[in-house]
Amino acid sequence: MKTKVLSLLKKNYPDYVSGEEISRQLGISRTAVWKHMRKLKESGYEIEARSKVGYRLIQTPDRLYEHELTALLKASVLGKKIVYRETVGSTNELAKELAQKGAQQGTVVIAEEQTGGKGRMGRIWYSPAGQGLWFSVILRPRISPVDATKLTLVCAVAVANAVREITGLAAGIKWPNDILIDNRKAAGILTEMSAEIDKVNYMVLGIGINVNFNSKTVPADMAGIAMSLDEQTNTKISRIDLLAAVLNNLDMLYQDFTQGKFAAILSAWKEMSVTLNRWVKVVSPNTVDEGIAFDIDDEGILILMKKDGSMKRILSGDVSLR
Amino acid sequence: MKTKVLSLLKKNYPDYVSGEEISRQLGISRTAVWKHMRKLKESGYEIEARSKVGYRLIQTPDRLYEHELTALLKASVLGKKIVYRETVGSTNELAKELAQKGAQQGTVVIAEEQTGGKGRMGRIWYSPAGQGLWFSVILRPRISPVDATKLTLVCAVAVANAVREITGLAAGIKWPNDILIDNRKAAGILTEMSAEIDKVNYMVLGIGINVNFNSKTVPADMAGIAMSLDEQTNTKISRIDLLAAVLNNLDMLYQDFTQGKFAAILSAWKEMSVTLNRWVKVVSPNTVDEGIAFDIDDEGILILMKKDGSMKRILSGDVSLR
Repeated sequence: MKTKVLSLLKKNYPDYVSGEEISRQLGISRTAVWKHMRKLKESGYEIEARSKVGYRLIQTPDRLYEHELTALLKASVLGKKIVYRETVGSTNELAKELAQKGAQQGTVVIAEEQTGGKGRMGRIWYSPAGQGLWFSVILRPRISPVDATKLTLVCAVAVANAVREITGLAAGIKWPNDILIDNRKAAGILTEMSAEIDKVNYMVLGIGINVNFNSKTVPADMAGIAMSLDEQTNTKISRIDLLAAVLNNLDMLYQDFTQGKFAAILSAWKEMSVTLNRWVKVVSPNTVDEGIAFDIDDEGILILMKKDGSMKRILSGDVSLR
Repeated sequence: MKTKVLSLLKKNYPDYVSGEEISRQLGISRTAVWKHMRKLKESGYEIEARSKVGYRLIQTPDRLYEHELTALLKASVLGKKIVYRETVGSTNELAKELAQKGAQQGTVVIAEEQTGGKGRMGRIWYSPAGQGLWFSVILRPRISPVDATKLTLVCAVAVANAVREITGLAAGIKWPNDILIDNRKAAGILTEMSAEIDKVNYMVLGIGINVNFNSKTVPADMAGIAMSLDEQTNTKISRIDLLAAVLNNLDMLYQDFTQGKFAAILSAWKEMSVTLNRWVKVVSPNTVDEGIAFDIDDEGILILMKKDGSMKRILSGDVSLR
């Protein structure tokens, strides 16, 4: 009902709608209308109440509420179920817990803040309240674990596409799945899976995007490495629009992927790549390699051409551009 | 304290030990001794109490109690922590839950009965109370998901070794990890993992061994496919001895594996293989292939030589011997 009251306010925006009108259209008492207005205000909606005239919406809060997001989604798989939290340890951990309990494919776990956000290789992902997008998507593709890398690349393309759509910035992809702008990291993806040897049970794609960082509160060691989209646009970016764009893009590409159209997605990945044809250093747990990032093969594996002309397949590691 | 009382009974087996003696040695009251005897009897221990003489142990129950198992373990990693349940849905499910909450490497989850035992490819694993071994081991190897198949082969070798040791039966391995005796399945392994793209978080090796089936209660559709070890030995097999043997073997091989000695384990696997050099049919989700099982490569992948002489790498599937 709160959502229905909100819809009426939005429909009449920026004009007033009388309490009587709301009461009549929704079949609720004037007291109920008043109570819903109070709840909306508590949720951060700025609403002006003028006696004998009615209510009008002044401003929608910068929140990732389910009812706001749902209105923007065109997805057929993603966002069928949305789990929203003000604060959470890690959206990936919560998503894995839900997936373990049987959460359906397409479930999206969203938090305004992560207190223990995770990056690749056990790193921390700085996730302050309201300053970025921290969310995880549960997928249940019928693939073998060896094909999981591909889905990470699919996700990177979706995020880069969405950032380009909403901000107009030239988002690039660093292998395997960092989103860079101007050589600094604007977004990252942490893919986790539960699998048998030859069958994925579920995958959790965790996505972190630095949107509107408060530069005063960003940890010093992130300066020069991480960046926030608003630094480049010089204007605040609508987080919910960007979130919807990522989900809509990922939904489309995921369907292509499940229909065997990975080759086209890999082409898009290559077009946005900032890694290919550059001299890179790759630090893996046990080795350090340098060479030209020669290609990404059909499995999503980086092919490095070393100084002596030999080729090496890189399954994992940290790539830095030289 | 119950365990200490049991130890005293075992030390004096098959003789009596007086209540006074137990009371003195353990520094507990005669009433306490009596209470512990009652608890042991409740746990299935057959204890004879003779007034003015004392207590003596008649028989240890056919149960997989932690204190009985621990006494048989020589393992340095496996069994550090043992979780024992009379009945459980699936030991793999419980193990995954515990692993998710941080359970240490080497944790073993054991159940007398599984009400929802799982096999490969979503099949059911028949797991009646006390008639087999149904258990799962949590490992945290520092490997990439692509190397997970290897660990499945390691586990198959451990189970086959243990069955040979305890029963003297010529246990064979059918790719990837079924244990066959006389062409029928005596044991199976279900490997599950939680992983990032390039890093395993944890693995759960679920092992089911049909030990002393009551042939009257076995489902009809398993006849001819599954078998129970005691059918071949014609004598009841000690489940706890077999369990300890599997864990001791797996512990040793796992350490070899983590020290890079997979090649030697693969050789052992090949020696016990009933698949290699035979005409096989491989049913995968999307394809059916026939050919000679030509080799297992260094990654644990089956190499099939087809009629036309071409080779095909088989990552997963159901193999049947022709």
